[in-house]
Amino acid sequence: MTEGNSTAAEQVALDVSGVDELIDRFAALSETHGAEGVTRLGYTPLEREAHQVFATFMSHLGLSVHSDAAGNTIAELPGDGRPDGIGTGSHLDSVPHGGRFDGIVGVVAAMLCAQTLAADDYHPRHPLRFVAFANEEGARFGQACNGSRLAAGTTDAEALGELRDRDGISVLEAMRSVGLDPDRLDEARWRREDWDSFIEMHIEQGSVLADGADDIGLVDTISGSTRLRLTVHGVASHSGGTPMLARHDALVSASAIVLAANDLALDAEHFGTRITIGRIIASPNSMTTIPGEVTLDVDIRDVDTDRQRQTALTLIARAKETAALHDTSLDAHLIADTAPTLLSRRIIELASRETDRLGMVHRVLASGASHDTQQISRVCETGMLFVPSLHHGVSHSPDEFSRAEDIARGVQALTGLLTALDMADEQPAS
Amino acid sequence: MTEGNSTAAEQVALDVSGVDELIDRFAALSETHGAEGVTRLGYTPLEREAHQVFATFMSHLGLSVHSDAAGNTIAELPGDGRPDGIGTGSHLDSVPHGGRFDGIVGVVAAMLCAQTLAADDYHPRHPLRFVAFANEEGARFGQACNGSRLAAGTTDAEALGELRDRDGISVLEAMRSVGLDPDRLDEARWRREDWDSFIEMHIEQGSVLADGADDIGLVDTISGSTRLRLTVHGVASHSGGTPMLARHDALVSASAIVLAANDLALDAEHFGTRITIGRIIASPNSMTTIPGEVTLDVDIRDVDTDRQRQTALTLIARAKETAALHDTSLDAHLIADTAPTLLSRRIIELASRETDRLGMVHRVLASGASHDTQQISRVCETGMLFVPSLHHGVSHSPDEFSRAEDIARGVQALTGLLTALDMADEQPAS
Repeated sequence: MTEGNSTAAEQVALDVSGVDELIDRFAALSETHGAEGVTRLGYTPLEREAHQVFATFMSHLGLSVHSDAAGNTIAELPGDGRPDGIGTGSHLDSVPHGGRFDGIVGVVAAMLCAQTLAADDYHPRHPLRFVAFANEEGARFGQACNGSRLAAGTTDAEALGELRDRDGISVLEAMRSVGLDPDRLDEARWRREDWDSFIEMHIEQGSVLADGADDIGLVDTISGSTRLRLTVHGVASHSGGTPMLARHDALVSASAIVLAANDLALDAEHFGTRITIGRIIASPNSMTTIPGEVTLDVDIRDVDTDRQRQTALTLIARAKETAALHDTSLDAHLIADTAPTLLSRRIIELASRETDRLGMVHRVLASGASHDTQQISRVCETGMLFVPSLHHGVSHSPDEFSRAEDIARGVQALTGLLTALDMADEQPAS
Repeated sequence: MTEGNSTAAEQVALDVSGVDELIDRFAALSETHGAEGVTRLGYTPLEREAHQVFATFMSHLGLSVHSDAAGNTIAELPGDGRPDGIGTGSHLDSVPHGGRFDGIVGVVAAMLCAQTLAADDYHPRHPLRFVAFANEEGARFGQACNGSRLAAGTTDAEALGELRDRDGISVLEAMRSVGLDPDRLDEARWRREDWDSFIEMHIEQGSVLADGADDIGLVDTISGSTRLRLTVHGVASHSGGTPMLARHDALVSASAIVLAANDLALDAEHFGTRITIGRIIASPNSMTTIPGEVTLDVDIRDVDTDRQRQTALTLIARAKETAALHDTSLDAHLIADTAPTLLSRRIIELASRETDRLGMVHRVLASGASHDTQQISRVCETGMLFVPSLHHGVSHSPDEFSRAEDIARGVQALTGLLTALDMADEQPAS
């Protein structure tokens, strides 16, 4: 029966046009209408529309589809009575002016995988679940993986009432504005007994696979991320009337902090740590006023938990010293903190066997970005497949690019891995 | 007759409540409704409303009032037939989240001065003109002194069609949106033969007067200002997926440029030069994306023309080197350039005599900020009176503060100076 089922994956020709068509369809749902990348933020009508495209596609395949109070959409191909499902999927939201592939590729892979299995009239032993998570990007509210956090129980309504976007709208308010009911968030929680395993396919967002000419990546670790908001307080004053030596310039101070953060990530001890200050807001941000206040959002990533936390503490200490040196003061505020996650060794081995069988060259690697899978690891065994990112691995940018044939190869590997997982517990290892 | 007229100024009791009432009235016209300072940008309905308050006040005093196509409002007390007027006034717009005094104090002084002269039934020899200039702050469109530039002929409709605010609205579009007719801008031009002299009263926006316990400042020089827009081009990419050494981080590069600019203004050679980077815009400005582009608006001020221009060239060269060192590139664009201006020595002497007569302690000083008077210097002899700024001279900030009694003293000095100017050419110096 293992062989019979594996055929489902083998029989898939590389469905390049299916990939292109779905990627285009989602990319069209953007505030930017195609120019300057894709903008489809979490818990906005455009993100909901993308979920509806996913739901309609799955319904047409004959799968049962439901959307939960967290805004996650789940389609199910029923099993033979076993309760614990095998899932795959990713997210449909984007950062502002992001690319066409981040998240989308994993949902498109789930859609094409479901299409193949449905066409093959595949009857799984475990329920197979195809998932589109809501609001994965931290871009809008500062904390990433909102939908999967709610599924995993690593956040709750109270915490989401505190997180606000730059317009002051809380996550809960945003959810309500698109018709979700935060009072029923408990129903969106995944129970351990309902899940066997979960696999997410994603673009690499780095250049390791493309540089090595590998077909596919098997992720062993997902970096943790500590996110800080540093606010530098100076004194706003007139650019002409205030002598240089009488200034408390919050932007000069913040600039020194940006460089200190960059130096910290580049020193020998922090090899592998990445520190990014992606967002800066100066106030009043007027040409003729010395900035009185500057806010910096800092993202610290590491695969080593202790080093990640220590880096955050060191950075706060250096930022305070730097602020004082420039006659300003500093507040530091923790926005979010996620530990690095080890993924399932068993799934890496299964995936490795499947990609070998399909004649693909794979590489085991770490993920620098965080992913919904990190949250779902609290619920069940998890794995991730990476497809190569081109353009030097640029992501969160309109230049983000992955080839349709690489994505189609990823769909083959994912289909093979899901059927292998479905069969895996039939024959206990011995 | 000199003595008879001077009495007009001497008779003014310090009209502290008149000052307070008018300052409050203008401060109420703010987008912010009183919280977080005053926001009343140039060529907006709120600025027009402030001009209307000025026009109505002057009409009630019996002065003839007209508004020109540039949005400047001018009230006139007719002379005895001489064509060349003596003017005073300032501007009614503010920076975003600015103070209650910048510009306003000079218009309020013009109003109270007109009120005193009208109450005294003063009949001037020269027409006395009380002026509220439009759109003085460079905050919205990058170039300062729009209304006075149009009066002085130092800008024109073509140039104003190119200047745009951050929403992409050009000066001309903004003017049309508040009912002004840019096709008639030539009519707003002041002719030399119509003007004898112009005096602007303003807050110091520095702490020289307050530190020295002086009552009033007489300005001899107004700093020039060279304004640049520097755009740093990097590569936007994912904060997790992109190793530190593979980055082209536009914010790290821009931060090094901010520090280089600050160092340049602090070196021994540039003592007296002020360089401010008041505005920074990062793109896409998202926590999980390495900034791909950062724009810095730079304001270089100096009382020495050559040093001012040389500083701009040196800064551009250093910024280009710094950008290249950080694997990014740089574009530099000149937004505006105004040379330092020497004010009339004769007016300083007249003002000095008036303040002595009124028992006030004066000091001659330079202005760090630019002012409408700088433009009007192209038309006629000009002078400026500064009243003390408290709170360490903070300006362009909600903390900007001047005492009503200091302003009222300024009104006395201004009234005295205007009547002295009115009489000055009756007795040729001999």
